[in-house]
Amino acid sequence: MRLQLRRLCSAPARLSVHTINQAVRTAQYAVRGELILRAAKLQEELRAGGGGGKGFDRLVECNIGNPQALRQQPLSFNRQVLAILAMPALLQNPALRTSFGADAIARAEEYLRSIPAGVGAYSESQGFRLVRQQVADFIAARDGVPAQRDDIFLTDGASKAVEFIFKILLRGASDGVLVPIPQYPLYSATLALASAQMLGYELDEANGWAMPLDELEKKHAAAVAAGVTPRALVVINPGNPTGNTLPRDNMEAVVRFCSKHHLVLMADEVYQENIYDDALPFHSFKKVLKQMTPEPPLQLVSFHSTSKGFLGECGLRGGYMELCGFDPEVQAQLLKLVSIGLCSNTMGQIGLGLMVQPPKPGDASYATYAAEKDGILQSLKRRATKLVSALNELEGVTCNQPQGAMYAFPSITLPPKAVAAAEAAGKVPDTFYALALLEATGIVVVPGSGFGQKENTWHFRTTFLPPEDEMEAVVGRMTAFHRDFMQQYS
Amino acid sequence: MRLQLRRLCSAPARLSVHTINQAVRTAQYAVRGELILRAAKLQEELRAGGGGGKGFDRLVECNIGNPQALRQQPLSFNRQVLAILAMPALLQNPALRTSFGADAIARAEEYLRSIPAGVGAYSESQGFRLVRQQVADFIAARDGVPAQRDDIFLTDGASKAVEFIFKILLRGASDGVLVPIPQYPLYSATLALASAQMLGYELDEANGWAMPLDELEKKHAAAVAAGVTPRALVVINPGNPTGNTLPRDNMEAVVRFCSKHHLVLMADEVYQENIYDDALPFHSFKKVLKQMTPEPPLQLVSFHSTSKGFLGECGLRGGYMELCGFDPEVQAQLLKLVSIGLCSNTMGQIGLGLMVQPPKPGDASYATYAAEKDGILQSLKRRATKLVSALNELEGVTCNQPQGAMYAFPSITLPPKAVAAAEAAGKVPDTFYALALLEATGIVVVPGSGFGQKENTWHFRTTFLPPEDEMEAVVGRMTAFHRDFMQQYS
Repeated sequence: MRLQLRRLCSAPARLSVHTINQAVRTAQYAVRGELILRAAKLQEELRAGGGGGKGFDRLVECNIGNPQALRQQPLSFNRQVLAILAMPALLQNPALRTSFGADAIARAEEYLRSIPAGVGAYSESQGFRLVRQQVADFIAARDGVPAQRDDIFLTDGASKAVEFIFKILLRGASDGVLVPIPQYPLYSATLALASAQMLGYELDEANGWAMPLDELEKKHAAAVAAGVTPRALVVINPGNPTGNTLPRDNMEAVVRFCSKHHLVLMADEVYQENIYDDALPFHSFKKVLKQMTPEPPLQLVSFHSTSKGFLGECGLRGGYMELCGFDPEVQAQLLKLVSIGLCSNTMGQIGLGLMVQPPKPGDASYATYAAEKDGILQSLKRRATKLVSALNELEGVTCNQPQGAMYAFPSITLPPKAVAAAEAAGKVPDTFYALALLEATGIVVVPGSGFGQKENTWHFRTTFLPPEDEMEAVVGRMTAFHRDFMQQYS
Repeated sequence: MRLQLRRLCSAPARLSVHTINQAVRTAQYAVRGELILRAAKLQEELRAGGGGGKGFDRLVECNIGNPQALRQQPLSFNRQVLAILAMPALLQNPALRTSFGADAIARAEEYLRSIPAGVGAYSESQGFRLVRQQVADFIAARDGVPAQRDDIFLTDGASKAVEFIFKILLRGASDGVLVPIPQYPLYSATLALASAQMLGYELDEANGWAMPLDELEKKHAAAVAAGVTPRALVVINPGNPTGNTLPRDNMEAVVRFCSKHHLVLMADEVYQENIYDDALPFHSFKKVLKQMTPEPPLQLVSFHSTSKGFLGECGLRGGYMELCGFDPEVQAQLLKLVSIGLCSNTMGQIGLGLMVQPPKPGDASYATYAAEKDGILQSLKRRATKLVSALNELEGVTCNQPQGAMYAFPSITLPPKAVAAAEAAGKVPDTFYALALLEATGIVVVPGSGFGQKENTWHFRTTFLPPEDEMEAVVGRMTAFHRDFMQQYS
């Protein structure tokens, strides 16, 4: 009895989900959420040979923008340089001179001259100087506007950069950030972890997912009225999961809005190379800002990454942010914050340098590089078109044609019986649909509820990354599943 | 007038150091703090050729455990495997294959079989399965106690793992963590960022930096009395900056203390390979815990890294943590938290796998690997001895002989005139001393105040990483400086 009592008293002190930081419990991250846990289990079953009755022998992971997991090949030039950086002794092997591009060797040597300690030492916390200069040169050439090495911070992917900015900005539960709905759930999750307020603004699906400027003003005013201080506005352009590309006048209006309300504009521009509509080229927010007259005062951060574009170097975790219009003291605080984690990984930093300074016409690797790049981008465009055309053929499904990024975000009108069945199963209807799709086809998508969506609408996000020779089959299985599903619940 | 008024009103809304998250301002990180900023400026002057009158032409960076920045060479086997992972096409070239050991090729092929997408795709959020299994096998062999792949989380260096655990544990300003004084400032900085309480316990310098068990109890009781909930205890073993190695009975007492008070034991064991005193071998807290009878109930996390040991692969940002005794639900929350950042960098993960599963006797690379490893460790031991002997010769300086890690942390008795001069200059006395050392010699050390120290004692932390052929000169310059400094202020 006494022992039992002691146990009862001491038990609650042991760490449990009830005594951890509850902000962690609150945070949701659908890209790797419930559906993905089920997919992982299914993967185990398939590996163990239990896929016999399933009609598919492996999963097709359309849940995450992870191109090389779906057989996209890395660019030869970039990997040649990385191999030399990993092992400078390769330069001593004469055979290297015949099998590597002369420009790849020269580039590796340039990095090694600038970084004599190589990739095995910590870099400056902000990132290698040479790579930051390469990024600044890239931005200046892209925008026709000067860029400074010291305004660039190299990070372990763009996610980490977003975390740093939120850490600097968010002081507690009465701070908020305007985030698009639907959004990439990094934003909602990081806000939840900071116990800050997500101020969602709904993109206009009927109007190609345009920025809803009236709604922005309304959301802002409502937040202020509720005692919340909006600190920043997140824009994802090209859009994730929406695949839209913002027109320039829309961007100017966003700049004016942020400037007026003293909001930091967080421009997630990681899909800037994934552009499929010639009529809607990518413009950086920095260029748009700098070309406005008069230039509105604004604090702008732009994020970019090696993970997307045509590189798809997700595993390297290379990313950067460029700060624009920030006080030097704030920038110094950011540098201190970054330095607590010492530095971002050096191979990712080099990977980023290679991304922003590719081979130029006349260089030994140029022709191969250009062919690899064009092959990937044109194939992505074809796959996007094929997938979205097929989706739009499905009963109750409509999908905007992606103008950029690597996702389609179709809207599905689910029959009332399906909604009821979902409720009976204790699932959000779009999760119910996505789980059924997974079980029937092995195709992994993410339910729209993971990104946020207008009330009583249902979506899912799928990449168009499956290899071209599998796309037909993927589309076929998706189509057959949808037909059966609609029949079952009609 | 009206315009001016408007400006005055709107100006404060612009982001400034006064309106950022003040926890960021509060956080200090001395390893890259004031002294380092001055060192960076000095570096610029030297680069620009302004070192003429200084008596040195470059800096000696003893401020950070960054071995490859001081010419330590990476291990050949490890870099061979990394190069192949960066560029699997290397294996297709017979002439290039000759640059690699057969076991390095076999290891690379093993990784590529297990990870067909290669290093360019995101891994599982927790890290590659194969590498986690390799870590588990390493731990099991080291401790003679089973270890599970699913209890291992691969992270971008150990720092990131510490951040994840703090994020899970710390709920706000009334949570605290017991941290040694002196400590590695990652802990104080991360606690400050979380607005949580650092509960410092002073290690016993006179007793070889032993764990002060009475003081632990007192600190714990005082915290509870003050309304603070202690959540965890940090132990750094071997010690940073202290260089001590804990004896086993001391560790058992720490385990009992944590178990009794339901504290998560955070065992920073990143220096486990850096052991210089045969009488004090490294024991992991997990082994000590598991061999106690009865085994006290405990939640234990152990951290390890590619950055230290004899690898010194700081730039790769490879690390892991092993959880022991945690509820599965808590572990699931941790996995979700980790997944928000997608995954740690893949080259760092592979680097970690190579660290924990080195070539074995009989393998093609074994002899080279063993020679490289022994060369580095024995040289470190010689350099430690040389540096610490010299330090102990200096007037007013005493320094414990390092038993582990890569740092010496001498105590300096500063003359009252030096303390007064420091105060007049608005500097903490040990910062004043370290700045003077930097200006006179180019040697960069970190003032003891950056790590915490007993009141009215002064220290600095220096690595013993300068190359062996420079150590004599470094010690000579340090000695001459100290003599002059003491003379000046006597």
